Amino acid sequence: MSEFASESSARPARIVSLRTHDIRFPTSLELDGSDAMNPDPDYSAAYVVLGTDSPDGLEGHGFAFTIGRGNDIQSTAIRALESYVVGRRLDDTLEDLGGIWKAMVHDSQLRWLGPEKGVMHMAVSAVINALWDLKAKRAGKPVWEVLAGLTPEQLVDLVDFRYLTDALTRDEALAILRAAEPGRAERKAKLLAEGYPAYTTSPGWLGYDDAKLRRLCAEAVAEGFTQIKLKVGADLADDIRRMRIARETVGPGIRIAIDANQRWDVGAAITWVEALAEFDPWWVEEPTSPDDVLGHATIARAIAPIKVATGEHVQNRVVFKQLLQSGAISFLQLDAARVAGVNENVGILLLAAKFSVPVCPHAGGVGLCELVQHLSMFDFVAVSGSLDDRVIEYVDHLHEHFVDPVRIENGNYVTPTAPGFGATMHPRTLLQFAYPDGPVWTAAKQRNAS
Amino acid sequence: MSEFASESSARPARIVSLRTHDIRFPTSLELDGSDAMNPDPDYSAAYVVLGTDSPDGLEGHGFAFTIGRGNDIQSTAIRALESYVVGRRLDDTLEDLGGIWKAMVHDSQLRWLGPEKGVMHMAVSAVINALWDLKAKRAGKPVWEVLAGLTPEQLVDLVDFRYLTDALTRDEALAILRAAEPGRAERKAKLLAEGYPAYTTSPGWLGYDDAKLRRLCAEAVAEGFTQIKLKVGADLADDIRRMRIARETVGPGIRIAIDANQRWDVGAAITWVEALAEFDPWWVEEPTSPDDVLGHATIARAIAPIKVATGEHVQNRVVFKQLLQSGAISFLQLDAARVAGVNENVGILLLAAKFSVPVCPHAGGVGLCELVQHLSMFDFVAVSGSLDDRVIEYVDHLHEHFVDPVRIENGNYVTPTAPGFGATMHPRTLLQFAYPDGPVWTAAKQRNAS
Repeated sequence: MSEFASESSARPARIVSLRTHDIRFPTSLELDGSDAMNPDPDYSAAYVVLGTDSPDGLEGHGFAFTIGRGNDIQSTAIRALESYVVGRRLDDTLEDLGGIWKAMVHDSQLRWLGPEKGVMHMAVSAVINALWDLKAKRAGKPVWEVLAGLTPEQLVDLVDFRYLTDALTRDEALAILRAAEPGRAERKAKLLAEGYPAYTTSPGWLGYDDAKLRRLCAEAVAEGFTQIKLKVGADLADDIRRMRIARETVGPGIRIAIDANQRWDVGAAITWVEALAEFDPWWVEEPTSPDDVLGHATIARAIAPIKVATGEHVQNRVVFKQLLQSGAISFLQLDAARVAGVNENVGILLLAAKFSVPVCPHAGGVGLCELVQHLSMFDFVAVSGSLDDRVIEYVDHLHEHFVDPVRIENGNYVTPTAPGFGATMHPRTLLQFAYPDGPVWTAAKQRNAS
Repeated sequence: MSEFASESSARPARIVSLRTHDIRFPTSLELDGSDAMNPDPDYSAAYVVLGTDSPDGLEGHGFAFTIGRGNDIQSTAIRALESYVVGRRLDDTLEDLGGIWKAMVHDSQLRWLGPEKGVMHMAVSAVINALWDLKAKRAGKPVWEVLAGLTPEQLVDLVDFRYLTDALTRDEALAILRAAEPGRAERKAKLLAEGYPAYTTSPGWLGYDDAKLRRLCAEAVAEGFTQIKLKVGADLADDIRRMRIARETVGPGIRIAIDANQRWDVGAAITWVEALAEFDPWWVEEPTSPDDVLGHATIARAIAPIKVATGEHVQNRVVFKQLLQSGAISFLQLDAARVAGVNENVGILLLAAKFSVPVCPHAGGVGLCELVQHLSMFDFVAVSGSLDDRVIEYVDHLHEHFVDPVRIENGNYVTPTAPGFGATMHPRTLLQFAYPDGPVWTAAKQRNAS
């Protein structure tokens, strides 16, 4: 070997670049994803690629999910974190993702833009998840398996317990993780053999007509799903008719969740859900503002035994802590890319375990199914140790853009084995759907102009 | 007159431009503004100017306040709102600021970046406040007087009651405003004669040594202030020493508030405040995460009769609603530029009045004193009708950059009479402190390089 090669192999690999892509899909044309608050989403990703000088060309991929306008703001926010990663040694960085999480989240100037919420927090999410993608690819394992292979001490080191200690201390978290250690191997084997239960939201978008609703409900049952979800909240008479169609189609044995996407005030939520009670809804999701902990608690008390679920717009672990402390939610719907990535979600899974509340992640959008499956599977192997009442949302949109798309078999997520986080999009997608200058958008502009 | 001139005078004026300026002051060099969470702020404004084609050259000025890094992200977010204002007729727009507020806040795609929090919500704040500046300049009055001249019906039309109705309905808000109508003229006269009480934070920054603390405390009393504020939360022994110095210097008759800037967990807040109780703190501000409603309520119960204040980082009216519902705060510290501007703050003032909690606005930073005085003065004339236990924060920094800076006399804000919101910076400031290419920053860069 030459002197150069020897020096090169001794030099530790570094992260050498952070680049973003503003990727938007024109989903508003199809009314996929339409609900009472989001009538015309263009599902989008503020996509980030962390480049390294590793000889194997290793890259980490992550993204924040948005629904169109503002994806450029989100990309700008991600680029603001460049100095936290570019130039760093890969080995040190990936060994201490808890440290880099705290450094980014608590940046003494950027924190003013949150703190820990909105655009800036989602930017941290994208970068942290890209680092986890790097870590898992480097280990040759999927993220869930990397997480489930860490010791309880390593896991709690990922978590920032600031503002959590009145509900969950580091020692309590360690005790939860240690209690789950003995069964890890057995649950991992079960997961690889059987996958993880899913439910489907595909039938229930508000923009679909009754015939399409009926057909998709029937298909969902035929495909093995035991839970479906309907969007509600735009018009009560419509909702009653659509709930009746759904219940008639799927029969009494299938769970039907309903999702209002924050449409109601507290009083309206209670009245509306009561009007749908005869169709036996399994949970009501996002009945009101995601910021309204006390409102959710009031609704939960009023509509029991119907249960409340929320989480896709919950900004951080501090709000989840309160939703659990107040008994406001019976299902916690974490999102992979709204709170600050894997690290904060490990903390949220531990909070949920402490309060014995099942985690049923939010998914759909762009690539959220691909990400959250890792979190639920880690939860099963190493945190809650349970599948009881636990399901991951599944929406059959846009998976074709990912190199390792999720696979569903008989109503279950097939446990992924490819290295990484599943966040990597095809290079052709990054070109075609680039906004505003990719071919899909220039063509749309020409159509509008003519 | 020519045909052209006649046509021109008949054409209604429009908003024709929205431009932003990234303005940063190198305050970190002086440790002005240093506290337990913000050790090195560079006070900054993502500044927006709405241009019109009005023959008198009318412009509306507004800004979001940040503390340095990220001010570019904030400016990008403001520009994303351009289509909501540019091209609109001035008269229609200024007659229905409630309508444009709802349109911007509930933009069906941008809302995903919040909703109603963080960078995107502060961007709405900047634009809404610039519209209020336009409205007031056009009317030839200060904003407080414009607001205090609206009917109760016009005022409630400014407010979005979504998510508030379990605590405050439109009818209840109307009743509050109507009850305050009879005394408006008398209170306006009193305000113009006497001003509005202030308190000063200038003595208490963590970066100052004991001698400077003692000197500034003495000066505050000599200047007529009856309340001062000290930053705490970095080191308990230091805080005890500094509180003792402050109390010894000002004597028993002056109120001393303490401000932890979110430093503590719930348990730590209680212990720390108890250790400072012997110095009779008037309120403890931001004891923990601004997102932790239940945490604030727990702290408030534990440290009574010492009272809790918060608000500068409270993201929106939904969180303020809960802080009031749960009895978590005894003082509500609204911020002019974090929630979505005047309109949302009218709603917050009404909520505070409903719960009989005094509003003591957060100020300081860049231009926040200039803005919030209008909100407190409107509150006194037309909402709460009271000055009891109400004070506006005052920090003596950076006022020289404003065309109409606040004036303090004998511990009171002098009631402003200049038309507008007081947000307009000097043109030379916009040039000198432009980041990164203004002369102040290019000079700093050269110093660092040499």
